[in-house]
Amino acid sequence: MSDLPKVPRVKKAWYVLARSGEVQGNKPLRRRLWGSPVVMFRGSDGHVGALVDRCPHRDIPLSFGDVVGNNVACGYHGWQFDRTGECKRIPAFEGTAAHKTRCATAYPVREQQDFIWVWADPNTEPDCDPYWFEWADRPGYLTVRHEVSAEGSLHALAENALDVPHTAFLHRGLFRNDNDRNPITCVLERHADKVVCEYIGEPRPPGFAARLLSPSGGAVKHFDRFFMPCVVQVEYAIGDENHILTHAALTPIDDHETMLFSVVCVRSSRIPKRLIRPLIQPLAMRIFQQDAVVMALQKQSYRDFGSQKYTSTEIDLLGPHILKLLNRAARGQTGEADRRKPYRTEVRMMV
Amino acid sequence: MSDLPKVPRVKKAWYVLARSGEVQGNKPLRRRLWGSPVVMFRGSDGHVGALVDRCPHRDIPLSFGDVVGNNVACGYHGWQFDRTGECKRIPAFEGTAAHKTRCATAYPVREQQDFIWVWADPNTEPDCDPYWFEWADRPGYLTVRHEVSAEGSLHALAENALDVPHTAFLHRGLFRNDNDRNPITCVLERHADKVVCEYIGEPRPPGFAARLLSPSGGAVKHFDRFFMPCVVQVEYAIGDENHILTHAALTPIDDHETMLFSVVCVRSSRIPKRLIRPLIQPLAMRIFQQDAVVMALQKQSYRDFGSQKYTSTEIDLLGPHILKLLNRAARGQTGEADRRKPYRTEVRMMV
Amino acid sequence: MSDLPKVPRVKKAWYVLARSGEVQGNKPLRRRLWGSPVVMFRGSDGHVGALVDRCPHRDIPLSFGDVVGNNVACGYHGWQFDRTGECKRIPAFEGTAAHKTRCATAYPVREQQDFIWVWADPNTEPDCDPYWFEWADRPGYLTVRHEVSAEGSLHALAENALDVPHTAFLHRGLFRNDNDRNPITCVLERHADKVVCEYIGEPRPPGFAARLLSPSGGAVKHFDRFFMPCVVQVEYAIGDENHILTHAALTPIDDHETMLFSVVCVRSSRIPKRLIRPLIQPLAMRIFQQDAVVMALQKQSYRDFGSQKYTSTEIDLLGPHILKLLNRAARGQTGEADRRKPYRTEVRMMV
Repeated sequence: MSDLPKVPRVKKAWYVLARSGEVQGNKPLRRRLWGSPVVMFRGSDGHVGALVDRCPHRDIPLSFGDVVGNNVACGYHGWQFDRTGECKRIPAFEGTAAHKTRCATAYPVREQQDFIWVWADPNTEPDCDPYWFEWADRPGYLTVRHEVSAEGSLHALAENALDVPHTAFLHRGLFRNDNDRNPITCVLERHADKVVCEYIGEPRPPGFAARLLSPSGGAVKHFDRFFMPCVVQVEYAIGDENHILTHAALTPIDDHETMLFSVVCVRSSRIPKRLIRPLIQPLAMRIFQQDAVVMALQKQSYRDFGSQKYTSTEIDLLGPHILKLLNRAARGQTGEADRRKPYRTEVRMMV
Repeated sequence: MSDLPKVPRVKKAWYVLARSGEVQGNKPLRRRLWGSPVVMFRGSDGHVGALVDRCPHRDIPLSFGDVVGNNVACGYHGWQFDRTGECKRIPAFEGTAAHKTRCATAYPVREQQDFIWVWADPNTEPDCDPYWFEWADRPGYLTVRHEVSAEGSLHALAENALDVPHTAFLHRGLFRNDNDRNPITCVLERHADKVVCEYIGEPRPPGFAARLLSPSGGAVKHFDRFFMPCVVQVEYAIGDENHILTHAALTPIDDHETMLFSVVCVRSSRIPKRLIRPLIQPLAMRIFQQDAVVMALQKQSYRDFGSQKYTSTEIDLLGPHILKLLNRAARGQTGEADRRKPYRTEVRMMV
Repeated sequence: MSDLPKVPRVKKAWYVLARSGEVQGNKPLRRRLWGSPVVMFRGSDGHVGALVDRCPHRDIPLSFGDVVGNNVACGYHGWQFDRTGECKRIPAFEGTAAHKTRCATAYPVREQQDFIWVWADPNTEPDCDPYWFEWADRPGYLTVRHEVSAEGSLHALAENALDVPHTAFLHRGLFRNDNDRNPITCVLERHADKVVCEYIGEPRPPGFAARLLSPSGGAVKHFDRFFMPCVVQVEYAIGDENHILTHAALTPIDDHETMLFSVVCVRSSRIPKRLIRPLIQPLAMRIFQQDAVVMALQKQSYRDFGSQKYTSTEIDLLGPHILKLLNRAARGQTGEADRRKPYRTEVRMMV
């Protein structure tokens, strides 16, 4: 038994910490981000605050308390803090509540597209905007949101989400099988802030899910994309019938525990809108559960052996490049050199 | 995740390790004190012994064995030890059992007022007597004993037990509420071996518990006291009708886990004696459970953040002074300077 | 709380990792050896392989996968490995699977007498053969195999299995009692690779088990033997009626967790063969469960006190000598000096 391996912690970045609807009412919500407890609450003015989940008085989690007006009140002695972390009230105390030693630590917060985004470094100002899901809630597209969590690092989950070869084994029969393989060409580009892979010459996958979505077959357009530091996107278009964009915003609860806030945007001329959600939800959950088992086993292996020991081949397409970007960002490297000259490669693979 | 913060361990001191009735029959009792397992047993002569709960032969806890005469016998090979730790018998062995390498380590023990007190340092002789509950079992007073445990340090529980402001929040409605506040004067004195706070000008609390105990109101006499290193006492007299002394002997099972042996002494001209216990017990348990939740949350916070980070105001009356005395005692400082010139302060507070 | 004490890890040695029947079909078997996960699988050619249970690609335990022909296939991406650890297939990859960076680590394996033996150091070649159970499956002998596991070190379990004095206490009434003791002479010899103790002058034990096996009494022949590094053997013959050889091959799952693969060989002129198994199994399980409780308590003591602290007398016969051999072997000492001049001692004991 041993410690889990270190992961690149990108702290100067936005992560989704909750769905908008999870932060409401008079009870605050506790989540963790890179291992640190965060309390979120929505004031009576409708704005959301996110503080380090610890009352500066006696270390009690503020999430144990209540929302009072625009403040969160500790459940032990009733100390109140506003969205900026300033202490606004100390019951029974005749002096002034606000004092620099009595501040709670505040995180920058943005609410957009039904998500609460939190900037993971409470000591710096955000220098960018949260990711915008371009196709979400567009006319003609149905958008399905869902959240789950898995025992794996952000990188492990990002690689898994954008990895093609494992689908023929772990998800055997859902997308692909291990027979009837065709050669395709994969064009990968790594930019300073994203990795994009296009798959050229891919036939419609023979699996159940693919047949359901695109009964008449047709040319396949398939892109896998990673947007630094936490968004994965799989774009699929099969013929003109369907356009499916599966995203997940990955949130590092801890180094080796990750939440996925998924956003699936679907336009289909074949499947009636009211049937899309009942079809997607159970299928996505089945796939996710299979992946979650593998992630948990991988984490157990890290514990058992006390180390991580990857070997890659050229068909491990996005994972190694995602890791490169995460490692650079965790070290504070800007990647300007890369921005001018993106990395590009072509690989042949059997799918 | 991280280690829990260090606490002052006062080892040269008496702590209650059991109720008298818990140590009897042919099965020994195992408890922990500052993290070390202790086995207690009552010999056929009626005297109680307390040994380090480990057989010197093969490290098996002696509490797994049996009481045989005045000895405790290990359950693995039957080695027997008396109250002093001397080995008295080794079955099948033809030599003499007693030998300096075969001694169990013995703790000094005192039994008084229905409690087994154990001196926490087995390597030193006690230089004082255990605390005496002055009002326990007196004529005219009903005495109710009870024991519970909580996930918090001795200091956290002592501060909690003697803290007034939190009662209006955590125990809202039982003693006080957050409205109709009155200013009172608090006079605090810290001596070398105790901290005493008198509350002057306090009206009868409006809460349910107070109304029950003193329906006709009247002048309130209220003292909170801490006796080094482990006894808290709240003395309340409302008019002439009632005199209530709530004590707890706090026992550090571990640095952040504490048993409370409570002793409540009540004289009441309003409530018939036979009703006092049924009234006190459920009320005390409800209060205690609310406090235990906060203590456990505080401990969880220590784990989450890997540190303790208190901020106090002047209305945190006893806690900081108790910590001062505990820290001094843990460092072996006698506090003679303090004995001659007690510390005294006055504070105004709204209750 | 603290770490468990270090134990001598003898790595250049064979240990039983499974019964033959446990390794079959298309699902591999996972076990641990000295804390390291091992995956075992039987190829379609009937031979058993044992690999470090970690796919070199992404650290997933190979035991999560399937047996395919003579290979084990990872459940994540379908990489296949043969018994030597060579990578035989990478689905979707157009290059050659075999490559030195893509090898799984293989353990030497031997299958004999219904057991899978694994050499605990995958980096060295075995320089000896696994232990041979000489009396197993012989004509006239009934052989009963069984496997259990306990929370204790290999040494603690070996000492326990070969220790006579504890049987009068922990297993009171089954073999011996604490009264009617007789003096016997114990002759102990320690060789470079084994410890043997003969008990001379032992009457038939008065307990239930003994009376059952040998109703008419008679002279007792009793040897306790330890064979480096993992086999214990108790040989009992009471009169001419019975010859019982109880062995256990001890397998260090981890430093303080051990599996016992027991092999009991019985020849009896009194008890019909078909009754032996129904008599032995429940009795052996009862004894083992009592021992397992003590082993787990001992381990808990190590945790509680952060150390091991043995004291022995001369009637702790085999344990200290077994420890000596294990310590030497763990340090890589050959014990040649010992081989020429075995250690010999006589002790009197009351049984």
